[in-house]
Amino acid sequence: MTTNLSGFPLSTRLRDVRGSAIRDLLTLTARPDVLSLAGGLPAGDALPRERIAVAAERALRAPASVQYGETAGLADLREVVAADEAFRVGRPVAASDVVVTSGSQQALDLLARAVVDPGDPVVVEDPAYVGALQVFQAAGADLHSVPLDAEGMDLDALERLLREGLRPRLVHTVSSFHNPRGVTMSQVRRARLAELADRYGLLVVEDDPYGLLAFDGAPPRPVAAYGDRVVRLGSTSKILAPALRVGWLAGPAPVVAAVERLRQCADLCGSTLTQTIAAELLSDGPWLAGHLHRLRADGAARAGVFTAAVDAAFGPAVVRSEAAGGMFSWLEFVDGTDTDALLQRALARGVAFVPGSAFSVSRPRTDAARCCFATLSAADLREAVARLAGAWQAPTGPAEDVDGAGGRIGHRRSLTTRR
Amino acid sequence: MTTNLSGFPLSTRLRDVRGSAIRDLLTLTARPDVLSLAGGLPAGDALPRERIAVAAERALRAPASVQYGETAGLADLREVVAADEAFRVGRPVAASDVVVTSGSQQALDLLARAVVDPGDPVVVEDPAYVGALQVFQAAGADLHSVPLDAEGMDLDALERLLREGLRPRLVHTVSSFHNPRGVTMSQVRRARLAELADRYGLLVVEDDPYGLLAFDGAPPRPVAAYGDRVVRLGSTSKILAPALRVGWLAGPAPVVAAVERLRQCADLCGSTLTQTIAAELLSDGPWLAGHLHRLRADGAARAGVFTAAVDAAFGPAVVRSEAAGGMFSWLEFVDGTDTDALLQRALARGVAFVPGSAFSVSRPRTDAARCCFATLSAADLREAVARLAGAWQAPTGPAEDVDGAGGRIGHRRSLTTRR
Repeated sequence: MTTNLSGFPLSTRLRDVRGSAIRDLLTLTARPDVLSLAGGLPAGDALPRERIAVAAERALRAPASVQYGETAGLADLREVVAADEAFRVGRPVAASDVVVTSGSQQALDLLARAVVDPGDPVVVEDPAYVGALQVFQAAGADLHSVPLDAEGMDLDALERLLREGLRPRLVHTVSSFHNPRGVTMSQVRRARLAELADRYGLLVVEDDPYGLLAFDGAPPRPVAAYGDRVVRLGSTSKILAPALRVGWLAGPAPVVAAVERLRQCADLCGSTLTQTIAAELLSDGPWLAGHLHRLRADGAARAGVFTAAVDAAFGPAVVRSEAAGGMFSWLEFVDGTDTDALLQRALARGVAFVPGSAFSVSRPRTDAARCCFATLSAADLREAVARLAGAWQAPTGPAEDVDGAGGRIGHRRSLTTRR
Repeated sequence: MTTNLSGFPLSTRLRDVRGSAIRDLLTLTARPDVLSLAGGLPAGDALPRERIAVAAERALRAPASVQYGETAGLADLREVVAADEAFRVGRPVAASDVVVTSGSQQALDLLARAVVDPGDPVVVEDPAYVGALQVFQAAGADLHSVPLDAEGMDLDALERLLREGLRPRLVHTVSSFHNPRGVTMSQVRRARLAELADRYGLLVVEDDPYGLLAFDGAPPRPVAAYGDRVVRLGSTSKILAPALRVGWLAGPAPVVAAVERLRQCADLCGSTLTQTIAAELLSDGPWLAGHLHRLRADGAARAGVFTAAVDAAFGPAVVRSEAAGGMFSWLEFVDGTDTDALLQRALARGVAFVPGSAFSVSRPRTDAARCCFATLSAADLREAVARLAGAWQAPTGPAEDVDGAGGRIGHRRSLTTRR
């Protein structure tokens, strides 16, 4: 950018926020000839657009549907969310324990603003959800990370940090069908994490947009089922439609009150229209059950096609996460393939993914790739994997430097800064 | 609140944010027997609900309408907003100079986060829009204020601060049909404010949700028409429907880029559905022209009824702002009536308004009241003013202390803290 930035100085918090490599990559891969495994979009044909249209028509018969709404969210929506949360955590949850937000991303941002002062320690997983990293960077948090393995967050590593005296304001986990790592925290670890939260006075953020997308139809029992010091974040983006922008936070009353108060200044309130639509769909039990059943079957089918294609194409050269739900498969190249460089060759062959480096906190993951299996058709998934395998087998060298940026370092810069 | 807050410590920035007296008051005045002049809602019957339903039905025919959208906003919407901004400021504005936000409130919040570090000075008007005060308090700004008169912000007072060495990161103004003060900045002052911004290297925030509600059909020429160092905030909430949650920021490229980047972590993107609806309505020129004409005529009629009733009931005892557009009339009681105490008596008689103290920055305005004339019917406006006059004429004393809170101080506390 050539504009003189010096005339418009930016805040310290903004300078600390790295752009989302994924969002940037999405603009790079919007070419119609690129099959994208990079995004995190639900498949368009799996979204209940006709049902939403029916609900929208009905909602718009009432004058209230176009007015301002309550900051904490539409009462009907808070009720149905609270009922589902109560069912999942196995104890009463009141509507007043829920605040509706603009996707769960806003819940995360408001929560961080509500409890994190600049310099406060926050624990994240490594690799981490990029949106969480951005939020905590914007809050000026002092980031600490613990690695993930096939059973989720490494709690020995977390406990080591706590024993050394670290007292994080928040511990963030995507407990089920992790983005980007694909894994689900075991029940034993969930119980232990809740116990650590009680013992050390921590606040755990259980970020759970994918739990209802368990392919076996049994969403994992939440971390919050094991203790009180857990804030749960949920969303309709992966089960109804991202365009509703309806997510929520459920947790201890003081946290809910603080988030509601900050939402007043963040954007006053959400859309009464999209909240009315979401409330109708979530309250329509028989329809919702059938829809979730179809969504899970659809996701399982796509995941099966993708993982079979990966196994066939790469064999033991790639170790991948189990695909038991959610949207993502994490591939680790045992030969140490540099996935930033691989992405350039892959784009030249018409396939995109997100390199592991985009999610790295302290441990560089240049040998890994996040692939979303939830968006493409079966045929496109097979073709995408074939192209990826072709890119992986192709010789590396200057001839493959398709954009002339001069290799990995230059390329990384273009990915991690938006402009 | 009896919950133990100590177990969940809050951030410094949250402790600095006062609750919105108005939103709290709205919950107090939700009783059906109270005629409310307190809110800032467009009249329900003036909102184009049927036209929105048509646009929603059409939007939902396209798969993209339910997916994630671009962080900066739907391309069609940015185009039509940019075209209108260009028309109003009298020079080219590109779609890339516009970022769509969740109401103009989110634009204000993201802008403050993008450019204000804790301790940075920010200049606001006094009395001020409460949502702006909350945003700047959340950003940790060092607030300075300049008074308003019938021609808007007192620029002599601003220039005095600048000459004394103050270098605010932002100067915030609701330039047209001020909330709460009802006044519109004169063109002479607009030119001078833009010139001060250039001379002192300031960034002016021209918060303009009401400009299109000029009852004479001629929106005031924006401050941004006179200079480059002005960020404009706009909204569809007062002209189409609050539930669309569609606002925008238009300004210098580095500011737009910074706000877009922060929006990634704030909530990823807005609703594609409501943005598609807004884009269709704003692009439908003939319909929009007719709609705005009706909206202005409707607002002018209500304002006329309200101001005539006030003049008849209070005569010279009340000095009020001219009602040439927007939604608010500002009443000053020349006898120094304490409007916090008056509110208690008014509520007992079934009418609500917002006391001036809710908007005060450095100069206490306990003798003033903000009344919204845009929501109630003509008959209800007349009845509301009659009840207000009754409350004003009634004897004051302990018997009037309807909630037993023991007078003004206790009452104020209940208004300014949400719980």
